[in-house]
Amino acid sequence: MTVPQSADDLASTALEHKLNGTTNGHANGTNGTKPSLPTLDASKLTVTLADPSARTVPDEVTACSGTETICTDHMITVSWSLSKGWSNPELKPYGPLTLMPTASVLHYATECFEGLKAFRGFDGKLRLFRPDCNARRMLMSTLRISLPGFDPVELEKLIIALMAVDGPKWLPKSRPGSFLYIRPAVIGTQPQLGVQAAKEALLFITASFMPRMDSPPGGMKLHTNPEDMVRAWVGGFGYAKVGANYGPSLLATQEARERGFGQILWLYGPEGYCTEAGASNFFIVWRRKEGQLQLITAPLDDKLILDGVTRRSVVELARERLAGELEVVERKYTIDEVLEADKEGRIVEAFAAGTAFFICPVSQIHHRGADVHIPMGKANVGGDYTSKIKSWISDIMYGNEQHPWGVVIEEKE
Amino acid sequence: MTVPQSADDLASTALEHKLNGTTNGHANGTNGTKPSLPTLDASKLTVTLADPSARTVPDEVTACSGTETICTDHMITVSWSLSKGWSNPELKPYGPLTLMPTASVLHYATECFEGLKAFRGFDGKLRLFRPDCNARRMLMSTLRISLPGFDPVELEKLIIALMAVDGPKWLPKSRPGSFLYIRPAVIGTQPQLGVQAAKEALLFITASFMPRMDSPPGGMKLHTNPEDMVRAWVGGFGYAKVGANYGPSLLATQEARERGFGQILWLYGPEGYCTEAGASNFFIVWRRKEGQLQLITAPLDDKLILDGVTRRSVVELARERLAGELEVVERKYTIDEVLEADKEGRIVEAFAAGTAFFICPVSQIHHRGADVHIPMGKANVGGDYTSKIKSWISDIMYGNEQHPWGVVIEEKE
Repeated sequence: MTVPQSADDLASTALEHKLNGTTNGHANGTNGTKPSLPTLDASKLTVTLADPSARTVPDEVTACSGTETICTDHMITVSWSLSKGWSNPELKPYGPLTLMPTASVLHYATECFEGLKAFRGFDGKLRLFRPDCNARRMLMSTLRISLPGFDPVELEKLIIALMAVDGPKWLPKSRPGSFLYIRPAVIGTQPQLGVQAAKEALLFITASFMPRMDSPPGGMKLHTNPEDMVRAWVGGFGYAKVGANYGPSLLATQEARERGFGQILWLYGPEGYCTEAGASNFFIVWRRKEGQLQLITAPLDDKLILDGVTRRSVVELARERLAGELEVVERKYTIDEVLEADKEGRIVEAFAAGTAFFICPVSQIHHRGADVHIPMGKANVGGDYTSKIKSWISDIMYGNEQHPWGVVIEEKE
Repeated sequence: MTVPQSADDLASTALEHKLNGTTNGHANGTNGTKPSLPTLDASKLTVTLADPSARTVPDEVTACSGTETICTDHMITVSWSLSKGWSNPELKPYGPLTLMPTASVLHYATECFEGLKAFRGFDGKLRLFRPDCNARRMLMSTLRISLPGFDPVELEKLIIALMAVDGPKWLPKSRPGSFLYIRPAVIGTQPQLGVQAAKEALLFITASFMPRMDSPPGGMKLHTNPEDMVRAWVGGFGYAKVGANYGPSLLATQEARERGFGQILWLYGPEGYCTEAGASNFFIVWRRKEGQLQLITAPLDDKLILDGVTRRSVVELARERLAGELEVVERKYTIDEVLEADKEGRIVEAFAAGTAFFICPVSQIHHRGADVHIPMGKANVGGDYTSKIKSWISDIMYGNEQHPWGVVIEEKE
């Protein structure tokens, strides 16, 4: 790596250099790994199968009712070290990880993850939704938290390999319309208490049940964050899917829930810019004072928010299929604009968008004593635009519409 | 817990309420734990000793030369769950932890820690330095990251119990002037991928070797952070010792090291306020334009920086013992003030202060092409004030001065 000589662009260029060095298929050269060391290589996957009769597949409601996440029969793990590069990936029975008490991840949050879903289509096929987007974002998050780089195409192949094995049993063809949640993660495992980039790491992928969260009765209710607590900031890491964005947000969320709200609407700065709804992106359909319909969401350019795959899909589909009906706008907008629009009766719909919550209609925003009530449509399950966008994406996920975003997995049966 | 009814002080009051509810010795009522459940109780410690002949104690240099942190024979673990409260603490042989791949800490950085040292005094006694400060801060960090509360006095007792067992062997009387590093931590262990406060947790305490970092040849060299990367922000969690403050800082630190600098001097805001030096607090001795000597460091009130135990001790001792000679000032000051003072020849000394780096003289600050070179004293090991303060604290740690901050541990021999 060439060290940039300009003194004032220390780390930002570091990240760019690392990203440029890892997306071309030669996945190392990051975190000090020598270019000659093994890279992440899905073709080297070794397979150790679990006894298929050892566990039966629970029904969805039972699976999601406990305090533990129920995973499928297998997981994939790949270890990395600065001196040896990436090991051969292993597909093996799901089970615990062993870490030394001094492991980097347990102290310094050297961790990042992704979330995507696998869908059993109504056409019987097994699909992922835009897994390339998740794999590329995972690389960015991994480098941001000083963990080792890899070729995202190889990660995508590993995700597909896990679902090819566990899909037939855990997303059976008898359950069209069901999904599993896939969680790739990279953690720093070096047993070393010095505050430094981890010289050992583990990439692992699990697949599990997850409750459906896209239709809470009465819609999602948002409470704005307290003035003295913000989620992310300019110059921070709000755009990366690193653990450090999540733990610190729990305190505000916990108390909002005690007050009957589902998520925090995170505002930013003295202006009160609307950024994210909980750990999802946030959209409003409103009418401008001049009468024009807009679908508005926070922009990506200041790196405060996650570049959500669902967000991106909403923006792209709305621009393509609602052109003429409404304008899609990515810009900063404030909670005061929202309150004003509400007062003037210009708010049409709102929804949160993300992998976990999918497209979840928002019915209320509470901000310092004021309440914005948002129409939920005739059937009370979300407004027309929310429902329309949701069904478009859903149709791609479950194979009602053949679309390049729906990646069919060839199953081992 | 009474839920505060004012809408705009959601989480800050939550933290205050939790802190008030846990420092009175009735340690629960936090994170939803029922008051009737068992609290953290050091008197219930169970002891399972390792074979003392299984491992020999390495010399300090060997112990610190590898890529792994060498821990002592034992560790203490205490598990917690929302339904059962705190389990009985266990002192047992040091060894790996087992976590499910879905454990909260591995994804959401539900983790916090402390760092303190045990010292083998020149009077033969084993001491801790102000462990009460660490235990109280650990409670604050634990609650900030939505992990379960406890009575900090019990944590202090557990730290003492571990050192009472491992101190005689690992800090032998034949090595006066040596120390071990003690690392208590709390992590969220619940195997659940939902973004929520963990309903299961583990508190663990290890003791290990750590390199001496207070005297790098030529002094510590600081590089200011890149403009687009900040460590902490107002409304964030820079004051808490949570993992989320560390991992994201590694990228900038890594690149600074490639340029020959030891740590980042973290500036804040467009004004460029000086906050922390790496993961240590930062002090400058300078002369005001009017000629008066000042020891200056960043203030605690905006919650950007850690309330360091070493920082606090420096401030208190300097106020007590250098009164009349210099004024101790905790206020915001900018990098431009530092550059100006340097240009006018008013910078006398500078040092980083923390448990890991102890009192470490700073010899250089690089900021956007400009270099501030700071006097290192006649012997090139730090200026007079730096050395004086360092020796005062060192004398308390190693028993050359009897002082309430040096807590003597009664050893099991």
